[in-house]
Amino acid sequence: MTAQSINPRTGQAFGPVFADTSFGEIESIIEQAKVGFNAWSTASIAKRAEALNAIADALDNNLTELVEIADLETGLGVPRLTSEVGRTSFQIREFAKAIHAGRFITPEIDVAADAPLPAGHPELIRAVSPLGIVVVFGANNFPFAFSVLGGDTASALAAGCAVIAKAHPSHPQTSTMVHKLATQALADQGFPVGVLSLIHGVEAGVIALKSEVVSAGAFTGSRAGGRALFNIAQSREIPIPFYGELGSVNPVVALASGLSDPKAFATAYLDSLLLGNGQFCTNPSILFVPSGSSIVSEIESQIVDRSPTPFLSPATKTSHDNNRAKLAKLLSADPVVGKTIDDGGIYSAPAIIRTTAAQVSAQSEALATECFGPTGLVITYSSIAELLATLDHCEGALAGSVFAATDDDNAIKACRALAQKVGRLAWNSWPTGVAVSVGQQHGGPYPASTSSIHTSVGLHAITRFLRPISYQSLPKEIADQLL
Amino acid sequence: MTAQSINPRTGQAFGPVFADTSFGEIESIIEQAKVGFNAWSTASIAKRAEALNAIADALDNNLTELVEIADLETGLGVPRLTSEVGRTSFQIREFAKAIHAGRFITPEIDVAADAPLPAGHPELIRAVSPLGIVVVFGANNFPFAFSVLGGDTASALAAGCAVIAKAHPSHPQTSTMVHKLATQALADQGFPVGVLSLIHGVEAGVIALKSEVVSAGAFTGSRAGGRALFNIAQSREIPIPFYGELGSVNPVVALASGLSDPKAFATAYLDSLLLGNGQFCTNPSILFVPSGSSIVSEIESQIVDRSPTPFLSPATKTSHDNNRAKLAKLLSADPVVGKTIDDGGIYSAPAIIRTTAAQVSAQSEALATECFGPTGLVITYSSIAELLATLDHCEGALAGSVFAATDDDNAIKACRALAQKVGRLAWNSWPTGVAVSVGQQHGGPYPASTSSIHTSVGLHAITRFLRPISYQSLPKEIADQLL
Repeated sequence: MTAQSINPRTGQAFGPVFADTSFGEIESIIEQAKVGFNAWSTASIAKRAEALNAIADALDNNLTELVEIADLETGLGVPRLTSEVGRTSFQIREFAKAIHAGRFITPEIDVAADAPLPAGHPELIRAVSPLGIVVVFGANNFPFAFSVLGGDTASALAAGCAVIAKAHPSHPQTSTMVHKLATQALADQGFPVGVLSLIHGVEAGVIALKSEVVSAGAFTGSRAGGRALFNIAQSREIPIPFYGELGSVNPVVALASGLSDPKAFATAYLDSLLLGNGQFCTNPSILFVPSGSSIVSEIESQIVDRSPTPFLSPATKTSHDNNRAKLAKLLSADPVVGKTIDDGGIYSAPAIIRTTAAQVSAQSEALATECFGPTGLVITYSSIAELLATLDHCEGALAGSVFAATDDDNAIKACRALAQKVGRLAWNSWPTGVAVSVGQQHGGPYPASTSSIHTSVGLHAITRFLRPISYQSLPKEIADQLL
Repeated sequence: MTAQSINPRTGQAFGPVFADTSFGEIESIIEQAKVGFNAWSTASIAKRAEALNAIADALDNNLTELVEIADLETGLGVPRLTSEVGRTSFQIREFAKAIHAGRFITPEIDVAADAPLPAGHPELIRAVSPLGIVVVFGANNFPFAFSVLGGDTASALAAGCAVIAKAHPSHPQTSTMVHKLATQALADQGFPVGVLSLIHGVEAGVIALKSEVVSAGAFTGSRAGGRALFNIAQSREIPIPFYGELGSVNPVVALASGLSDPKAFATAYLDSLLLGNGQFCTNPSILFVPSGSSIVSEIESQIVDRSPTPFLSPATKTSHDNNRAKLAKLLSADPVVGKTIDDGGIYSAPAIIRTTAAQVSAQSEALATECFGPTGLVITYSSIAELLATLDHCEGALAGSVFAATDDDNAIKACRALAQKVGRLAWNSWPTGVAVSVGQQHGGPYPASTSSIHTSVGLHAITRFLRPISYQSLPKEIADQLL
């Protein structure tokens, strides 16, 4: 197989053809990764942090060229991609800062307790060790922040792991450029090429994930693809952690008390839904509104004036269009659509599908159908009881929102119900916009994530790649050399 | 299927026959567990801690009867079982104390940052929520500390989860008595029966693990059984975390500098190896000693005088004897055996199998053969290089030890090599004896554990059952009710 960039604005292929990494090439990449891991995991924390900062600098110093090629490959636009590079270098620096400050990696010293059993015990130093070599599968919708040098790679590197990154086929040139910049920065710091390797092709990724020297996998992408890789990781002779983010149908709940300005609410909703052509894992997939509210007609009247931006790839459009058609059929609904663009680019008109809580409860597959793109499902509910019952049918999701007045007695009920389903609950704010912050939880119940107790954004992401080891009664001379 | 207690000292069955929990019974137990989870997870932390302490008190207040029945079922002896009950109530109280102090459960408040992106962000409160209902599979070798009210149950309850405990068939009466005491203590505190349920039979455990309302599994036992359950948990439509401890071949390394008193060392080694008839997941399965040392002949001269204590069950003896025979055959070695007891009880003579690093490297399956019982493998090595190469062939293990002088240059090399393989590294001390302490790590690379980044002993065990949720921009009035 091969991959070639397609310009979403023209539908035309351009640039070099990338062949899938061959079996022989992967074998040598894995050997290099072993060397890389040895060098990286044994380097001092100060040196590791310095190298991470050098990688971040390399991104910032090449901002213009990076954004230019990524824009051609993804059509996401210069402003968004510029801020995405900034987010990517920022999160690499945040991890560098965290480990430099000893955060998450400082050994926990449990001093000996001279007491009868069960309270008495020898000294135990609980330290952490990097898991090993991690395979990271890049996402299509964030060519920087969730790709070769995205959060998974940054947190794995910060933990002391080596990374084999699998490029997403929709932006192979961006991936290659990012990889080159990173390995050059690492080389300048004296690190071998195997600290961060790049591979192309699904089969190459599978071979890497099956390799006995690989210790973990991380993935952001489709449910089917992620589950297949999860199954591979779990059915190995030695299973390994697989941190998959598999797509998410995010529920947003509006109570009547949160809808004081229907017009502004509808505008904000459509802005969130259509951000990046709806290609966000946190987009407001489902909006619950009280029946009888004017909000639905307000949304429908506004969407007709909305224009699409391009899909990331022809495959993304096909998948979206199929899911939109499935949803419309399941609910016997006619989507209300916005404007189309017919200039050879990869577009679909934005759309709203309207249904009722009663209908959707009879067709709960609709609640599990992710339209990754510019389609929103608006569900009207007739009572708080019906709302809560319908929420109970929702799948696990990355994020959700509640719009309500603080003194609305139903607000707490809606929050409680939603918290069962999501990894992040936003109050009177939209689920899009995932801050890179220590308090962030980007990971929800399955299928949103394969491990809901972990996050892929924010500093806690590093804990996915650290294994604790307790050292019992270690003399100081040995501890000083070992830890 | 049914289970009945067998007295290991006589080989005779006694007491009531326990039928496997039927499908219908499990369905109603699961319904009860849902009710139990609702009550338990929404109780205040103070109330939860109080109930945990009441459970611990119930164990201590019934010490004599508990030990009596457990001794009849396991043959582990009154002193060991008395201390095991103490360990069990202690660890329940430690978890109660930890949550009462807010440890692991206090929300992390990430205040809003008023700055341009990517640094700016809204307030995020990262709180934790109990995963749900947990199925705990009890171990045969710790009828209290790793069974119905063992560390898995205690940490899951402390996290706010409800537990369905599957009794080990080798001690159904002890399991039933422990469960009765716990549910009575919970009832006295106003909690429903479903907070902690008891089931019998492998199929019942599998049905529970497959139930869509179950959110996690925890297991201590054999590699084959644990892997089968792990596979079930991972291949569900919605996979769930499965924290399995699957048995461990623990390597102990003695350098020449650590063997100044061969006679005392041999005695201490055999004491550790034969503790509880060798039925410890942390027993010193493999001992590496320098060739030419007098230690091997010292061990062999001492073992002939050692007597066995009973196996936990006929099945444990059969499995041990088969593995010992397999090991002897793989290595073409004649075990040197100790004394036998032939009074109708379930015994095998203690034994040492001696081999060389060269032999075992040619038959690395031997390094993966766990003789769960009174059999030790002693491996002589001719150089530090040969030792390190052989250690590299070892599987993941729960614990390991290094015996050496502090100023021995090879000590650090041995520690580094061993740390790759184990979850706990003991210096000049034996791997048996797992302190219930915050610094403890009882979990090593597979097959020792299915999740080496977690521990099943010590306070950190609670994190296995807590899911983080970030609350974004939550007003104080709502936060006060919700968190």
